[in-house]
Amino acid sequence: MNYDTLSETLHAAIEQGNSDSIKAILDEFQAADVAEFVRHEDAETTLRLISYLPLEDRAQTIGYLDFSDQLEIANSLDESSLARLFMHMHADERADLFNVLDQKRQESILRRLARDEREDLRKLASYEEGTAGAIMTSEYAVLPVECSVEQALAHLRATAPDAETIYQVYLLDERHRIAGTVSLRELILAHSATPVSKLMQSDVVALTVDTPQEEVARLISRYDLLALPIIDSGERMVGIVTYDDAMDVAEAEATEDIHKGATIGKMTESLRGASLITLYRKRAGWLVLLVFGQLFSGMGIAYYEETISTYIALVFFLPLLVGSSGNAGSQAATLMVRGLATGDVRLSDWGRLLGKEVLVATALGLTMAFAVSFLAMYRGGYEIALVVSMSMIAVVIAGSLIGMSLPFVLNRLNLDPATASAPLVASIADATGVLVYFSIATAILGLPAIN
Amino acid sequence: MNYDTLSETLHAAIEQGNSDSIKAILDEFQAADVAEFVRHEDAETTLRLISYLPLEDRAQTIGYLDFSDQLEIANSLDESSLARLFMHMHADERADLFNVLDQKRQESILRRLARDEREDLRKLASYEEGTAGAIMTSEYAVLPVECSVEQALAHLRATAPDAETIYQVYLLDERHRIAGTVSLRELILAHSATPVSKLMQSDVVALTVDTPQEEVARLISRYDLLALPIIDSGERMVGIVTYDDAMDVAEAEATEDIHKGATIGKMTESLRGASLITLYRKRAGWLVLLVFGQLFSGMGIAYYEETISTYIALVFFLPLLVGSSGNAGSQAATLMVRGLATGDVRLSDWGRLLGKEVLVATALGLTMAFAVSFLAMYRGGYEIALVVSMSMIAVVIAGSLIGMSLPFVLNRLNLDPATASAPLVASIADATGVLVYFSIATAILGLPAIN
Repeated sequence: MNYDTLSETLHAAIEQGNSDSIKAILDEFQAADVAEFVRHEDAETTLRLISYLPLEDRAQTIGYLDFSDQLEIANSLDESSLARLFMHMHADERADLFNVLDQKRQESILRRLARDEREDLRKLASYEEGTAGAIMTSEYAVLPVECSVEQALAHLRATAPDAETIYQVYLLDERHRIAGTVSLRELILAHSATPVSKLMQSDVVALTVDTPQEEVARLISRYDLLALPIIDSGERMVGIVTYDDAMDVAEAEATEDIHKGATIGKMTESLRGASLITLYRKRAGWLVLLVFGQLFSGMGIAYYEETISTYIALVFFLPLLVGSSGNAGSQAATLMVRGLATGDVRLSDWGRLLGKEVLVATALGLTMAFAVSFLAMYRGGYEIALVVSMSMIAVVIAGSLIGMSLPFVLNRLNLDPATASAPLVASIADATGVLVYFSIATAILGLPAIN
Repeated sequence: MNYDTLSETLHAAIEQGNSDSIKAILDEFQAADVAEFVRHEDAETTLRLISYLPLEDRAQTIGYLDFSDQLEIANSLDESSLARLFMHMHADERADLFNVLDQKRQESILRRLARDEREDLRKLASYEEGTAGAIMTSEYAVLPVECSVEQALAHLRATAPDAETIYQVYLLDERHRIAGTVSLRELILAHSATPVSKLMQSDVVALTVDTPQEEVARLISRYDLLALPIIDSGERMVGIVTYDDAMDVAEAEATEDIHKGATIGKMTESLRGASLITLYRKRAGWLVLLVFGQLFSGMGIAYYEETISTYIALVFFLPLLVGSSGNAGSQAATLMVRGLATGDVRLSDWGRLLGKEVLVATALGLTMAFAVSFLAMYRGGYEIALVVSMSMIAVVIAGSLIGMSLPFVLNRLNLDPATASAPLVASIADATGVLVYFSIATAILGLPAIN
């Protein structure tokens, strides 16, 4: 049965309040499915369903949930149940949950764990959010440097059942530094007497614990890795980040970029889970800042008051012209910001892309000038049509060039190019559009310069 | 040596024109590194570097490149070299390249391939772009249903060296339908005499060839799969999609969504590789459409001409108010569109989110009203300050509600919620803003209704 059918059946069972059939259906779900299901339920149902799961499944399911839901579940458990849950969670997910608990609960958990686990948890939980250390797991498979394929496989069977992956195995020297890596595939395909050191690849891509998580995800994706080893400042191996975590990071980074493009600050919660205060704080900052940006447009309009009152038909086309400038600018900025984020475009490509943008923007400006010229002719006659068409070409080109350049300039200044959000670019393009439009109008309509 | 150091050395060697040292440095690169390097070089250098690679590496490297670069390289090769290259490429990448070649070259390739490979290529190349069939590979590992762990491992050693992954293995019945799946990890950890049928999981998540690629990527990510099996309409297994392809799809889908949010159409090429015509066509459509949206704002302004000429100070605040409305709307729309895309938010969450949005938007409106009230007081006195502040609250709330509702409405109508782009929302919010502002102004300043 697929997820949709199962979740319908589960909804029906919950409505009937039949615990036995709820448990039977939950048994058919994978942990990821349970998480997907409870994500859209209220807190009460979530807690009830989670309580029906056997401990092992519960620990796994919780790992898939958002932190706000995880915290709710953790807070509903007494201290010894919570400690038991912790023992069954993956090392990396456990550390993340630990970090959102209050201090009293943290201490009670630490007291109840065995010494090794306590040390492991303390260490994993200590890395700063957003770094390789914070997303890595300490459960990885290692081999001694000197062993045969047969010994290696026996070693893995004996030591690695808890490892997050045994498909990529690391060979460590006596100082815990990475001497090489070998895949299980290579081990399986090789002769059992072959020394593993002959199979291993010694040029291993590894990153330090403080590497930003998006860099880790980018390398895993670039090299199609199953896992990427993480080292500390002394080059000792301390963990791995697996491909599935890299996928989650990539999704979170894409969300962050998309939000940034609309002037929304970085949110660590899901939209569903975010509090009103969080939503307010993530949105207010730029909205207020942009108010001051838009003042320049207002000042431009005020400056050309006289032109406006003489040719009132000009006002009709104002939103259209400044809007088009802003839209073309947003397009150009968005293309550049995303290109820089994926690595498709680099700083050194700027010159070539600028040339392209001038041509594309000119073609766009001509098209749009053509589209509005008839309307302008109809509403304002020949002269207005000329002003509007010429302005359209000019503002679309100006907006596009501002939009494409701003991300590069920001990048050059070591600022995040994603700060060149559509609204920021639009507000700059708007002000430029006002000035361009009324300058052209003043010139063509033969009005005196004002003030 | 890491990539940055190596690429600097390679740049130096290319400038000196020393073929031997270029070859030596290339030898240190992984295929993904070579691809990353040539991506930012001109065509001539790319062709030269690629020609230095041994056939096996060349085939791998090409798989990492954009189609425009792949095509350039393919077209530089004579037909027999190209056929040899094809024989060394991965089945899925080969099919993608095949699809962009011209017909004459396609036929010449097919003639030169062995019958099995020809059939495989024809079949893989036949699936529609953007579907599971188009991204899957036919190189996967299978096992007979009746075998022991020991036999299974021997079978894998003998049959699977070409498989894209041997970590997830499929057991097929006599009609080629999936009876179950087992991971190499389970095989390794089990006793060698255990029948594989006892280890296998029979409830396998599989998708059909025509499933959209983003759905495939979403499931791979949700269940943390290494590979997801693909079946045809007769439920026969025909391929797998691996996690690394899912990562590429997820990145491409995020790019598409980001572009859509700025009214840029779907591009299959990279920004660097896109032609002027493509860039023009992907941008012109919505820009022209939005012109007509912005006409409504113009009409609103024209309607309130008299109010404007009486209180000219109002014009100064116009861009600021309509801009803020548009910006708040873009924020709300972006949050919803991304929430719907990642599955964080569903249609059924609409009511709850609307309630939240009203509260957040009110708080944002109050904040921004406060920010502009001083300025309005200074520039226009008490009455103008009242008009501007009240309008700010109203337009920010109106813009936000439009922005958050539009994606849901589109989704409800089975349209892509991502069509609720920032510029579209802004243009609707702008027109609304104009009407709200001047209505409030007319009412408070005690002007007669106009026209």
